[in-house]
Amino acid sequence: MVRHNLLIMSDLVGSSEVRRLRRFANVYRSSSLDKKTLADRLRQTDALLISSWPEFLTDGTLRSMKRLRFIQGILVGVDHIPFQALARKVVVSSNAGAYSLEVGEHAFGLLLSAAKRVVDTHNSVARGKTDFKEFRGTSDDILVLRGKTLGVIGYGGIGAVVAELGRSFGKKVIALSRSRRSASGSRGGGGSGLRFVRGRGALTSLLAGSDAVVLALPLTNLTEGMIGAKELSVAKGGAVLVNISRGDIVNQAALYEHLRRNPSFRYATDVWWYKEGRETLVTDYPFTSLPNFVGTPHISGPTAVASGRPVRMAVENTLRYLRGLRPKNVVRRSEYLTAR
Amino acid sequence: MVRHNLLIMSDLVGSSEVRRLRRFANVYRSSSLDKKTLADRLRQTDALLISSWPEFLTDGTLRSMKRLRFIQGILVGVDHIPFQALARKVVVSSNAGAYSLEVGEHAFGLLLSAAKRVVDTHNSVARGKTDFKEFRGTSDDILVLRGKTLGVIGYGGIGAVVAELGRSFGKKVIALSRSRRSASGSRGGGGSGLRFVRGRGALTSLLAGSDAVVLALPLTNLTEGMIGAKELSVAKGGAVLVNISRGDIVNQAALYEHLRRNPSFRYATDVWWYKEGRETLVTDYPFTSLPNFVGTPHISGPTAVASGRPVRMAVENTLRYLRGLRPKNVVRRSEYLTAR
Repeated sequence: MVRHNLLIMSDLVGSSEVRRLRRFANVYRSSSLDKKTLADRLRQTDALLISSWPEFLTDGTLRSMKRLRFIQGILVGVDHIPFQALARKVVVSSNAGAYSLEVGEHAFGLLLSAAKRVVDTHNSVARGKTDFKEFRGTSDDILVLRGKTLGVIGYGGIGAVVAELGRSFGKKVIALSRSRRSASGSRGGGGSGLRFVRGRGALTSLLAGSDAVVLALPLTNLTEGMIGAKELSVAKGGAVLVNISRGDIVNQAALYEHLRRNPSFRYATDVWWYKEGRETLVTDYPFTSLPNFVGTPHISGPTAVASGRPVRMAVENTLRYLRGLRPKNVVRRSEYLTAR
Repeated sequence: MVRHNLLIMSDLVGSSEVRRLRRFANVYRSSSLDKKTLADRLRQTDALLISSWPEFLTDGTLRSMKRLRFIQGILVGVDHIPFQALARKVVVSSNAGAYSLEVGEHAFGLLLSAAKRVVDTHNSVARGKTDFKEFRGTSDDILVLRGKTLGVIGYGGIGAVVAELGRSFGKKVIALSRSRRSASGSRGGGGSGLRFVRGRGALTSLLAGSDAVVLALPLTNLTEGMIGAKELSVAKGGAVLVNISRGDIVNQAALYEHLRRNPSFRYATDVWWYKEGRETLVTDYPFTSLPNFVGTPHISGPTAVASGRPVRMAVENTLRYLRGLRPKNVVRRSEYLTAR
């Protein structure tokens, strides 16, 4: 078997993981190489193991890496990878599933925070609203989950965790998934409260029928801006929309307008919009001044990283590639080709 | 059968409920009687149906109600009833179980809000902390629930809902309950993650062994101040304590000091301390200035009331009494005798 050259461009990978990889490849770390040696190595590199995209890997550099055939991400999403500069023969694997538990729980934390109006009522008390009578109308907007319908858009690892938690709260769950799934393919099947929808009209019917909706799908050129003014207009007036995938799935201007006009509708997110290719907490509209907006600063991912699972899974999949097996979670290049 | 005189002192009871009660009793509403007629009626009253305690029912008036034998509350707690002015022969029934679903869900909303640091990180972003790097340490304090231990103190209706939700998050659950329960008496039994503890030392071991603790027990003279400096000191450093029962279960001064000294420990509550016999959002210490305090203004109860279930259950139990059956949820007078 040909011995591949693997370049690790992430400090998250520990020495024991490096030892495992060395059994099947020549392993280098970008952080331990000087600029000139690194430039040489890049030309000899067959496989990359990365977390966030390294800034020095410009499109030009990338095009000079003639031997590159495989990129494994440690992050769950791959939307930060410049696909337009990658040759067709380069296979890219995401780290789908590695963050499901932590991100799924965080999604539910955001959902309950918004459903129970924890943030806005807490802040009202903190600002000196200390008469219980002033909160009398509050209960109208508190969403009781039992018996309600939860829509999950994107049924990967995170979506499955969210759906499972939703069902444990006694909710009916509708999941939008483009990959067909038989009822028997999921635990309990459709009969016990989980129903799959897909195809034309599925998004609209899911939004119209759900009391809470969780976005748990990757950002691709098919999903960017998929929640706009039209989609928001069909959602229930008192619904909670949770975004745990990427900010740009939702149209920022349309969301702001919808929240402003519909105080009972709520948006709770851990992810923020991109500006010049980077996620930023600085938004185009004053979302945090709205009582029906809840935002945490993308803290669900790092919690998962701390568990060690994302690195372990990324290394496992890299080992598959190095050993000549087909890697898992290969993404469809065509869906990521639009440059932002 | 003797036809009882029932006085309804709550506007929550609707006319259809009144019609049901009229089949078994002479029913009066305090709101529709003038002062003199009301005074006459009180002396003839056998049973009271109340929500919050009516201020004009002073101890003196109560003592003049020689025929009074039964009080049914619409609230779940009865700690607002002046037991010291009630004759021994008066039976008091709480409305245990009527709020379990909504309050149990709210408890979990508070738990997840604090576990995932939703409120404090949201507020940091809102105050202009917009560099992701500044949140890097945050993930250390994010509590992942799967595989962790949840302690539930008080295993009534609310405690059971909280325990069930906890198990669905893949948590081990320890429940402190003074009434003995066999493992088979609970769904799934002890083997599937629910273990009961009781007796001396149970509180300490539960606190020491739990990553999250939910207080779901009534305020009585046995439970007032049961969480003090000593109890807080045995709790885990990064634990989340949720209070969904009554503020005065927890010693206010000890809690403030503990939160101030242990920034990773969190307290999330829907209930507040009493001052001059009334719950108030005005605290003796500046809790809302602490990032590890989350407080909602007692909004879980009204949500339950809005469902109609509390009134329906209180009326059902009143009907039991009126028809000569033993009412449910009779409280132990001795536990409520200490005047606050």
